[in-house]
Amino acid sequence: MKDLTVAPRIIMTPGPVEVDPRVLRAMSSPILGQFDPLFTEIMQETMNMLKLVFQTNNRWAYPVDGTSRAGLEAVLHALIEQGDVVLVPVFGRFGYLLVEIATRLGAEVKVIERPWGTVFEPDEVVQAIRKFRPKVVAVVHGETSTGRMQPLADIGRACREYGAYLVVDAVATVGGVEVRTDDWLLDAVVAGTQKCLSVPAGLAPLTYNERVERVLESRKRVERGLWNLEEGAVPDAPRGSPILSNYLDLAQIQDYWGPSRLNHHTEATSMLYALREGLRLVLEEGLEARFRRHRQCEFILTEGLRAMGLALFGDPGCKLPVVTCVEVPPGIDSQSVRHMLLHEFGIEIADSFGPLKGRIWRIGTMGYSCRKQNVFALLGALGATLRWHGFPADTASALAAALHAAKKTEAWEDAAQGAAFPSSQRIREHLAGV
Amino acid sequence: MKDLTVAPRIIMTPGPVEVDPRVLRAMSSPILGQFDPLFTEIMQETMNMLKLVFQTNNRWAYPVDGTSRAGLEAVLHALIEQGDVVLVPVFGRFGYLLVEIATRLGAEVKVIERPWGTVFEPDEVVQAIRKFRPKVVAVVHGETSTGRMQPLADIGRACREYGAYLVVDAVATVGGVEVRTDDWLLDAVVAGTQKCLSVPAGLAPLTYNERVERVLESRKRVERGLWNLEEGAVPDAPRGSPILSNYLDLAQIQDYWGPSRLNHHTEATSMLYALREGLRLVLEEGLEARFRRHRQCEFILTEGLRAMGLALFGDPGCKLPVVTCVEVPPGIDSQSVRHMLLHEFGIEIADSFGPLKGRIWRIGTMGYSCRKQNVFALLGALGATLRWHGFPADTASALAAALHAAKKTEAWEDAAQGAAFPSSQRIREHLAGV
Repeated sequence: MKDLTVAPRIIMTPGPVEVDPRVLRAMSSPILGQFDPLFTEIMQETMNMLKLVFQTNNRWAYPVDGTSRAGLEAVLHALIEQGDVVLVPVFGRFGYLLVEIATRLGAEVKVIERPWGTVFEPDEVVQAIRKFRPKVVAVVHGETSTGRMQPLADIGRACREYGAYLVVDAVATVGGVEVRTDDWLLDAVVAGTQKCLSVPAGLAPLTYNERVERVLESRKRVERGLWNLEEGAVPDAPRGSPILSNYLDLAQIQDYWGPSRLNHHTEATSMLYALREGLRLVLEEGLEARFRRHRQCEFILTEGLRAMGLALFGDPGCKLPVVTCVEVPPGIDSQSVRHMLLHEFGIEIADSFGPLKGRIWRIGTMGYSCRKQNVFALLGALGATLRWHGFPADTASALAAALHAAKKTEAWEDAAQGAAFPSSQRIREHLAGV
Repeated sequence: MKDLTVAPRIIMTPGPVEVDPRVLRAMSSPILGQFDPLFTEIMQETMNMLKLVFQTNNRWAYPVDGTSRAGLEAVLHALIEQGDVVLVPVFGRFGYLLVEIATRLGAEVKVIERPWGTVFEPDEVVQAIRKFRPKVVAVVHGETSTGRMQPLADIGRACREYGAYLVVDAVATVGGVEVRTDDWLLDAVVAGTQKCLSVPAGLAPLTYNERVERVLESRKRVERGLWNLEEGAVPDAPRGSPILSNYLDLAQIQDYWGPSRLNHHTEATSMLYALREGLRLVLEEGLEARFRRHRQCEFILTEGLRAMGLALFGDPGCKLPVVTCVEVPPGIDSQSVRHMLLHEFGIEIADSFGPLKGRIWRIGTMGYSCRKQNVFALLGALGATLRWHGFPADTASALAAALHAAKKTEAWEDAAQGAAFPSSQRIREHLAGV
């Protein structure tokens, strides 16, 4: 079996994305035992940094050892018992994933839907909450399948008013776009490592508040193999029904991350090193500056794509800043274009799913991949590839527009001096008015 | 936040253990997209190597993206439906874990128990299979909590005879001790990365045969978000009940690892690089040679411990070669000894769980940690530490006996020339007779 061979790639998909070399180096550190004080200190430091990134004062923020959907499933496991009503507003593939997980857990799932490419008016969700009185509302923040972002603050208020728990899939947004866990009254938020945090896939950082913690406490079981009967250590019988999963049992995982350090799984050592380093990079850059960088790259990319003669997919008023969806021009073979980009230029962009498969390209500008040099490289490569396929792409104008946009964002950056960055829609309006 | 600081450790626990620098380096390779042909080739190569390590001709062998218990839970999810009878022979903590997982899945769990420190006579399990007629028998191969190993071949034959599926937790044994998936008629086997395979924790490699695959096919659902209704791609309704977990749904994960490459989670890129490199190292060394190395280190360690004046815990006839359990001498504070070993010598050994907590030390000789230099270092450190704590450890004799044992294994190695290696019990008998 030959040596591991990994070609250099420019990854402009909605994940997994490129990883800062500092994160890769962190993973090459030797192993520490899971209860070594040096390791539990790393756990604690990671928890502290996660709270800053989630913008929360919650007591708990830690990763589940699995990819993003493991975190989503863990949170839904924690909150859902057989027959509970769960409301899922669906506006893309990952909404259906929440439906699927909740259904498998035995929930009575109420689905409201919006056409792919749009999001909900907050009031539509609030009305559904009034109507169905769900125990849990589960919603996607950044829907990568359609490149849309759902505003959450009004939904958070309504959930608190009607006594529902609000679970948010912020896999695509945390680390690239504002996610205000506390301000928006989000009860549980799940992130992904392989997107805007720019850490390899394999962990699902999450946070939850005291409301969720009380549910966990009521359902907590201690593993039988950990009882010491001679010391009479049979735990009290819990009030709530058992959580259906052992691996994704947040009540037990919390005890592993908490001061009691009760053994559960063996924490994924090297991945935790990577997450710690990735979070350090996020905080060194600063959240505000990082969000601005993502807005700037989006602006450069979208200005270039428009000048090339391509149409963006979906409602611009709710565009997800870190994923740009482009309509495949009529008569162009979507897969053939992606194939040429990868094999001639070493650049990866994504297809979509279900009804949008083959109809749009999804271009991610996330985390370490979100660099203007990547955007320029993509625009040149895409223009040439489209020409090869017979579409009259205006590559020269695209690159000129992108460079112009980059210069504008620099000037704008000088003026911003740390102020909150507006949406790219507003930037465009602003610049059009100048 | 300071730079990641990881002290060098000698890890002599039952996992996570030290990792070969080649594996650490592999993880520092850049990210590839999950459908990049270079990456799917790495997936395929990993699958091929896993089959060799599991000693199987099964069609499927791949990791679940989670730690070992995620793999166990995934296999039990696949096979168990509400009300199914599951037999679990328990002889330590990890047997209880199987009970717990199966119970949470709604199985009617039948438990037979043996005192910790022993294993079952195969016929005891066969009788229980006859009595309870389980759909699934779930059993631990190497029980690290007690350092015992359960023979499986007779249980495999009985399961086939009575139509039960045999699920084996081989987390502690694969890569260090013989695990003959096909010869022993094991229907599903789950390994761990962080033990004898010497890869960081975070993946659970597993394999299953056609019998299990047929169950998966009957329960398979395609995610709603992947349907393309305009192309009429609504999948046929499956016959079996849904698998309760989406994340651990082997029917869906299999479609991701198979030729259809249907999107499920995002494969943990860097961890897969690590697993691939770890498996390469296993196969370069050769399974037979690797198993011998583990027996040799066990022999050196146990000869040293005896000469030091310590008693081994448990029935020697079923000792797990890769974990040696030592009785804590009366009056000695188990935790204080472990603390001194870690903080003065940089050596980690483990406590146990439940009724054995504080009563035995568990010393692992697994994978890359299984080196005679580690064993010598531990014996010297443990002898000095025990003296410090007031126990009259004979450190000089321990080291002399260990060195003598090492030389014996060298001579024996020369004579073996690839022959199957006997148990350390038999080695001791053999050497005593010489």
